[in-house]
Amino acid sequence: MDLEAFRRHGHAAVDWIADYLRDVERYPVLSRVKPGDIRARLPAHPPRQGESFDDMLRDMNDIVLPGVTHWQSPGFFAFFPGNSSPPAILGELLSAGLGVQGMLWATSPACTEVETLVCDWLVEMLALPDRFRSGSTGGGVIQDSASSATLAAILAARERATRGESNRRGCDGKLVAYASSQAHSSVEKDCRVAGIGSGMLRSVEVDANFALRPDDLERRIREDRAAGLAPFFVCATVGTTSSLAIDPVRAVGEICRREGLWLHVDAAMAGTAALCPEFRFIHDGLEHADSYVFNPHKWMFTNFDCSALFVADRAALTGALGILPEYLKNQASEAGAVIDYRDWQVPLGRRFRALKLWFVIRHYGVEGLQFHVRRHVELAQELKQWVADSTEFELVVDTPLNLICFRHRGGDVATERVHHAVNASGKMYLTHTKLDDRYTLRLCVAQAHTEREHVEQAWSLLLEAAADSNA
Amino acid sequence: MDLEAFRRHGHAAVDWIADYLRDVERYPVLSRVKPGDIRARLPAHPPRQGESFDDMLRDMNDIVLPGVTHWQSPGFFAFFPGNSSPPAILGELLSAGLGVQGMLWATSPACTEVETLVCDWLVEMLALPDRFRSGSTGGGVIQDSASSATLAAILAARERATRGESNRRGCDGKLVAYASSQAHSSVEKDCRVAGIGSGMLRSVEVDANFALRPDDLERRIREDRAAGLAPFFVCATVGTTSSLAIDPVRAVGEICRREGLWLHVDAAMAGTAALCPEFRFIHDGLEHADSYVFNPHKWMFTNFDCSALFVADRAALTGALGILPEYLKNQASEAGAVIDYRDWQVPLGRRFRALKLWFVIRHYGVEGLQFHVRRHVELAQELKQWVADSTEFELVVDTPLNLICFRHRGGDVATERVHHAVNASGKMYLTHTKLDDRYTLRLCVAQAHTEREHVEQAWSLLLEAAADSNA
Repeated sequence: MDLEAFRRHGHAAVDWIADYLRDVERYPVLSRVKPGDIRARLPAHPPRQGESFDDMLRDMNDIVLPGVTHWQSPGFFAFFPGNSSPPAILGELLSAGLGVQGMLWATSPACTEVETLVCDWLVEMLALPDRFRSGSTGGGVIQDSASSATLAAILAARERATRGESNRRGCDGKLVAYASSQAHSSVEKDCRVAGIGSGMLRSVEVDANFALRPDDLERRIREDRAAGLAPFFVCATVGTTSSLAIDPVRAVGEICRREGLWLHVDAAMAGTAALCPEFRFIHDGLEHADSYVFNPHKWMFTNFDCSALFVADRAALTGALGILPEYLKNQASEAGAVIDYRDWQVPLGRRFRALKLWFVIRHYGVEGLQFHVRRHVELAQELKQWVADSTEFELVVDTPLNLICFRHRGGDVATERVHHAVNASGKMYLTHTKLDDRYTLRLCVAQAHTEREHVEQAWSLLLEAAADSNA
Repeated sequence: MDLEAFRRHGHAAVDWIADYLRDVERYPVLSRVKPGDIRARLPAHPPRQGESFDDMLRDMNDIVLPGVTHWQSPGFFAFFPGNSSPPAILGELLSAGLGVQGMLWATSPACTEVETLVCDWLVEMLALPDRFRSGSTGGGVIQDSASSATLAAILAARERATRGESNRRGCDGKLVAYASSQAHSSVEKDCRVAGIGSGMLRSVEVDANFALRPDDLERRIREDRAAGLAPFFVCATVGTTSSLAIDPVRAVGEICRREGLWLHVDAAMAGTAALCPEFRFIHDGLEHADSYVFNPHKWMFTNFDCSALFVADRAALTGALGILPEYLKNQASEAGAVIDYRDWQVPLGRRFRALKLWFVIRHYGVEGLQFHVRRHVELAQELKQWVADSTEFELVVDTPLNLICFRHRGGDVATERVHHAVNASGKMYLTHTKLDDRYTLRLCVAQAHTEREHVEQAWSLLLEAAADSNA
């Protein structure tokens, strides 16, 4: 493909995306294909000779699109969102075009310096503690996901708790981690990965709002110490996946300081709310945190992957993850004047992911981002009121911000029936969880294109499905 | 940014990339900025109001470009390449535009099914063992990097060796891993991450060609067993970073089978050579491997990140990395008819990375890819002969394929002086290593745009620098 052909095909690809985003609302949100449908339509063997880009775009329409679940649809209320936006798409495009690999400062200084800058911007934008700034003892770094960011935090905590022994001699089965029973599954997975063991992650009890109970945390730490074990890490969640529960970070942080444990705060989705001063209560006590993660790729319109990890003490992180073979040595690193982000993450290589986040912040501006966050919260809270007032549904818990959790008054079977019916409508996509062992619908208002009309439509569909379910 | 503005800015971004790729040869390959230069030119605070995309493109030219080390320059001979290509850029663009998150089959069936398809295509293209096919007991998956892929392999091996105990109870300091002293640093880093400990990774001796010595591997396994330890994992490298040494996979594999150890093969850069039947000797014995990784984002023109991991027994991988909270349950997964790639990797979320790889294979066709690989190998082997015949330089080791390792006959100081001089020329970028404790230049011919003239120019620059260094 020569450069003139690239221009032509590139313009066509941009137009394809513009058409897609214009039409996305018309597609069934949850893909309707059956397992194997997509593959069955594709050639079993790779082509010997090259094919045209027009053929590829045609296959995007005919084969790929029917197999897509539309995360960019305004009817996407499932999980947490994975928002894209025009400036983010263009940032990703330019990053792909530059094709730089920012493992070291030297391998593209701008990749590192723009990343450090935007991470510092995020500290200011969310009013995070000063020690998360690069100019302090800490700093921020972009990872692919909160799973990876939390793993990095566990490794830094493990390194600090064992004074490097776990890196050298491996884990010894004594370290104990803590998170509430509502924490994200990645905390357990990361404990496995890091050699801590899922059995050494204590599932701390929650209160009626599904938030971690500090008294139970203290009790478990005490018991583990008495048993000769080594408590080292606590993950507090700001906005759990099931119900957006906000763990009491201040109380947990005070325990961590007293007990000498690493406090990691997982605010993957909800963290973005702190763009608005009125929602910053979610971060009360965050100054006690050793690390903090939130995902601009969820509610900050920066397409996946873009997860921002902050640490208060970057030396703990680089102590855990730094390694320097001869073939990576270079003058800038040896002078100690630069950040080499490879030492802040598990992988060695890294894309120029800061570009899309930089573009998003510059395109929307802080006020533009605040506008969208406020709008989503307002819509969700209105919907919550409709649910509370209805005869068909009931709230399972009184959630803050932009997620609501509810069920059919008729019980689990009726709720599940409603769930499948609204998803089958093609007009919206919801996912579920269990709270107090009851089948619960989660509806998250955070998709970039979701407007009042889509929330109203979702509510109508739910009411219709409830009526059918009663019939 | 409305969709019409997106079209306009998108076209401009595509044109910006086309201009960049047209002009990339004119920029100094290794960025000349000093630490802090880029950041100093950017605003310390995020904007309150949005800015125009034109401003962002202007900053790309004025501020970012001078801070870029040009991985897409034909004068990039450093490390291993990180190649981009027009079809890969467009695949990444469409992936960003769709903005799907493929953690589960259900969250975008096409994302999973195209990935499974292209991984099966790769098995055919590289003539990998049949058991790496999805239709067999194994399968392939795209990860972000070989570091992460090797970590996944270690975790699967750990799971198998401890029958799940390490996942539940954590590591116990008994597991021992093996790799040659020339293995990539990620093997050591991954052993740390997984709780094995860097001290439990044995650095196996190498022969005169820097390839792993099977007799030393056997001896170490024997000694570790005698000491009551539990050998579990061997990493063989096909194409080491320092000198493209090819470990004897067959001999290592026979030891692994006999001893019941997991054999992982790291062919991150060199694996692509197996596109050509005449280079498939590098994979001799690969049928013994439990896992294998190579990076299409290096020598297969698919921009970073795109690392392909294959396993012979996918149950070991999903046993190590699978986890199923209520909020991820869905009918397709429960029916057992689909692959959920989240269980094949550490992170939960995943982009539609298969799209760019699919486009690359379709654009070039197998024969087109073979053409480029052969051309690179031919150019490198010619250059190797020039070095061998020269009075200024000497080969440090007789490397195969597309990397050459050489030094100035005048010793380390002269070699290092040459190194800095050619990098300072701006016309090429080389990195170094140490072999037998001697400062050694590595020159890898694998950048997509590198032609004969660029290799000739590199050689002239090296000769000039050598002359200056003598003067």
